[in-house]
Amino acid sequence: MKIICRIGIVLLGLAILAPPAYAAGGGSITHSMMMLVLQLAVILFAAKLLGAFFDKVLRMPSVLGELAAGMGIGPYVLGALPLPGIGPLFPLPEGADFPISHELWGIATLGSIVLLFLIGLETDFKKFFRFFLPGTVVGIGGVVGSFFLGDLLTVYFSVDLFGETIGFMDYRALFMGTISTATSVGITARVLSDMKKLDSEEGTTILAGAVIDDVLGIIILAVVLGIADAHKSGDPTRWADIGRIAAVAFGFWIVATVAGLLLARPIARFLKWVPSTGATVALGFGFALFLAGLAESAGLAMIIGAYVMGLSLSKEDISHDLERELAPVYHILVPIFFAVMGMLVDFSKMGGLLTFGAIYTAAAIVGKVLGGGLPVLAVGFNLLGAWRVGIGMLPRGEVALIMAGIGLANGLVNEKLFGVAILMTVVTTLIAPPILVQSFKNPRSGLRKKGKPGSGRPPLERVFAVPDLDASLRRLVVASIISGFEDEGFTVKLLSPKQEIYQIAMEDTFVEMNLEEDAVYLHTQPEHQKKIKGIAEACLDSARKRAGDLKLRVLRMDEDIPSG
Amino acid sequence: MKIICRIGIVLLGLAILAPPAYAAGGGSITHSMMMLVLQLAVILFAAKLLGAFFDKVLRMPSVLGELAAGMGIGPYVLGALPLPGIGPLFPLPEGADFPISHELWGIATLGSIVLLFLIGLETDFKKFFRFFLPGTVVGIGGVVGSFFLGDLLTVYFSVDLFGETIGFMDYRALFMGTISTATSVGITARVLSDMKKLDSEEGTTILAGAVIDDVLGIIILAVVLGIADAHKSGDPTRWADIGRIAAVAFGFWIVATVAGLLLARPIARFLKWVPSTGATVALGFGFALFLAGLAESAGLAMIIGAYVMGLSLSKEDISHDLERELAPVYHILVPIFFAVMGMLVDFSKMGGLLTFGAIYTAAAIVGKVLGGGLPVLAVGFNLLGAWRVGIGMLPRGEVALIMAGIGLANGLVNEKLFGVAILMTVVTTLIAPPILVQSFKNPRSGLRKKGKPGSGRPPLERVFAVPDLDASLRRLVVASIISGFEDEGFTVKLLSPKQEIYQIAMEDTFVEMNLEEDAVYLHTQPEHQKKIKGIAEACLDSARKRAGDLKLRVLRMDEDIPSG
Repeated sequence: MKIICRIGIVLLGLAILAPPAYAAGGGSITHSMMMLVLQLAVILFAAKLLGAFFDKVLRMPSVLGELAAGMGIGPYVLGALPLPGIGPLFPLPEGADFPISHELWGIATLGSIVLLFLIGLETDFKKFFRFFLPGTVVGIGGVVGSFFLGDLLTVYFSVDLFGETIGFMDYRALFMGTISTATSVGITARVLSDMKKLDSEEGTTILAGAVIDDVLGIIILAVVLGIADAHKSGDPTRWADIGRIAAVAFGFWIVATVAGLLLARPIARFLKWVPSTGATVALGFGFALFLAGLAESAGLAMIIGAYVMGLSLSKEDISHDLERELAPVYHILVPIFFAVMGMLVDFSKMGGLLTFGAIYTAAAIVGKVLGGGLPVLAVGFNLLGAWRVGIGMLPRGEVALIMAGIGLANGLVNEKLFGVAILMTVVTTLIAPPILVQSFKNPRSGLRKKGKPGSGRPPLERVFAVPDLDASLRRLVVASIISGFEDEGFTVKLLSPKQEIYQIAMEDTFVEMNLEEDAVYLHTQPEHQKKIKGIAEACLDSARKRAGDLKLRVLRMDEDIPSG
Repeated sequence: MKIICRIGIVLLGLAILAPPAYAAGGGSITHSMMMLVLQLAVILFAAKLLGAFFDKVLRMPSVLGELAAGMGIGPYVLGALPLPGIGPLFPLPEGADFPISHELWGIATLGSIVLLFLIGLETDFKKFFRFFLPGTVVGIGGVVGSFFLGDLLTVYFSVDLFGETIGFMDYRALFMGTISTATSVGITARVLSDMKKLDSEEGTTILAGAVIDDVLGIIILAVVLGIADAHKSGDPTRWADIGRIAAVAFGFWIVATVAGLLLARPIARFLKWVPSTGATVALGFGFALFLAGLAESAGLAMIIGAYVMGLSLSKEDISHDLERELAPVYHILVPIFFAVMGMLVDFSKMGGLLTFGAIYTAAAIVGKVLGGGLPVLAVGFNLLGAWRVGIGMLPRGEVALIMAGIGLANGLVNEKLFGVAILMTVVTTLIAPPILVQSFKNPRSGLRKKGKPGSGRPPLERVFAVPDLDASLRRLVVASIISGFEDEGFTVKLLSPKQEIYQIAMEDTFVEMNLEEDAVYLHTQPEHQKKIKGIAEACLDSARKRAGDLKLRVLRMDEDIPSG
């Protein structure tokens, strides 16, 4: 803390030293850029520090800290206070219907594209098909439950909310239902991983359900955006038009996804072919931006395009490189995005909506827990297992935030309903982790009978470890394990760049590789332990051998290393 | 090429499929974001592909390809053509004095901040002080020569350019002089490295001179911006005001630099202390943004703040991490910046200025070659050596582009003079590499007598190599060599993230480590070869030993690895 104080005092001194006379030239492009750069600096400090505080001290998801940082420093709270020399850091743009500048929203938009591109890239196609049954029942159940409750509640309260009675198919009701469907698997995956339950039946079912959930949510968003466009541009009662536009939006989604999947291989080869430093990450991101822009121009949302692009590339080997190289971009842009979402919340306008907000939030919880949990009773789980799965699907996290932001920017929700959506997201994201931890403290199995439930997969009971590693050695070990298992026909998938969990699978054999600071852990099923241990030892042998073969050759100048 | 065609055709099909009806809603924030995202995608494709083409096929600096991409797709050429559904991709903003949108300029501004932050981070303080004498004469000579010629020419042509006679101290003349002072060491370093001449007397003198050049150029820019502010806001003949404001600007620069150097250690500790994934890169970038914004608000340019922040952190060990993690951000944002600079060039307005442009460019060449080259005759070089040094200082590259952009955004240069500055930058950057290669083909020494000239440093004649590496093994070798040499008391510095050249030095011992795709090379002086070989072998031994010690431990679930 002493360090922070010292740095803070000197930087404050510098800020006061900066002669304010030159800064007064508002309106010019130089002035907008100065404001943008200072805003981004303050956002990064506030979001990263509050995110770390939430994560490490409060043991809550860091996204909530980043959101809270934005609420605190935004244009409705601290950001409105005038600073010496530059005035308010986050002034409300004059006469605009959006509380932050276009420049800042542009940076935040890039953050949402990086985020959804990475979510798409991390999709595990093999798992997607393997756990199709339990994943589908959980995903559809949760989406249907929360969508209907969210929509119906908005209809029920419509006189209070809009001063008129609206129907189930009104775009505002549909949109409030859509926001409620999202699931943020990252938060649940982190909690389960901390408890070493990621490979339990409940864990794998939740992960598979979240993939279905992502896809369904994005299709629903596409259709609802199409309906909203029809509503706003024409006669809302002309059902033929609505249907046609929704069909076009859905059609674009399908065409883009199929085209993406067909083109993934040539795109990946193209990214590797361009012989320029950093071409892979720059052009990969370029493809995500391009499909995002196309999706928007087709009446869908940008994140849909970014997600489809990521999904398409997720089965190519270049996805590892893209995920690794996009990580620093993610670490800079995504906290900015969440903080900016927090800035959009106008607390003063939420006063009259607390009742609706509370009921909508409660409905979002009930809809997801019942909708996601109940169906798994049919695929081998007992009530305890259903409870765990339902709670695991609860956190709305980043996807709901993005949808809410799209709604606000498109005029589908007003500032009041936007605040309600944020409230629902925060509450569901906040309560899920502790309840999930509690539910797993009960040692009972979540299955009706011991054996193979819907997922067909027993828990991973044994652990191997490669201890005493430093960063460069750990990279060698990880690379050796990945290439060793791939040579044996396994597919290897980075589950998340933040948590560094790899999933390694072939047919009915599953291995999970967790990276800790100085060790690499391998988990697998008891019956495959011997086989996996053999492969792992061969991988380490190859790492040892490669390092043991290291030669230092003494060359004269101009002499090249003879190849071969 | 077949790949590109196939991808292109399908993406084009998708673009045409995208129903244009929804895209017509111009003016809304959603529409601006869609345009921004599509613009960025097209910029990334054009800049990266043309950059790679210039680099690999034409053997020219890739920055020129990126610049050319921007000129081609920008609002004055292809970007003005209407596309189906969205209209012109780069429309000239109505009634604005700047040819691109604020959102896009915001992204480009972040690119310039990343670039100057990295240039600052790469500064080698030890070398800076060691080669203070030759570096200073080269740096000061080149800056003074090109500054005076650039300023005087603008004064001479002032009636043609501005319709009035201006004096030497007029801000426009001063600014045209300032743009001419920049040196882009990256391009020269790359050429010298390709020829294995980076550690020749001429090479080290150029590198040291470029550091002095950066510092001087940025101080001059600070003072000239101060003078321009005084000019524009008050009576231009009030010299007391001009002096005061220039002094304030210069004073802020000094205070920020001293504060930065004093705070570098606590800031580095703070960056390592924040316990959140990606905190180092996000907060490090946040510091750069913060000082950039402060510098702008003090009447300086943003890049000055970003450079000072990088310079301050360059001597901390965290600078390696920052350089590595910022590399993907650099690969995305910096090509966007260069392409956007190209977009600002309005060819139609340059017609009448070709004479001035040609003379200004010739003066920029003569000023730098004579100003940088002649003084080294006094520190032990002969005419050939002076010629090599002068040519090496010639490329203006990115720094001049950034200065020109600042001038255009601040109204210090008009579009015509901006075009002239770009022409000068392109020509100097284009002609320097082939002349430099030619000058080194002459096998004669550039020194008056064999021995220790100004730099006090004989060439590095021997080469060691660690061959047959893959990516993960190479990382292990590099990490072992760095930590091994650091343990022996050497300082290790990454010269450039793009070229992957490390400089390792202690007292009079110099080692250069070059990373190739499958090998690591070490260069050193003949008299230290034995010592360096011993250390390098010990480093490799430690790498072998660390890998050889790899153990696979079999653990039961819940069992932790015993520490120690």
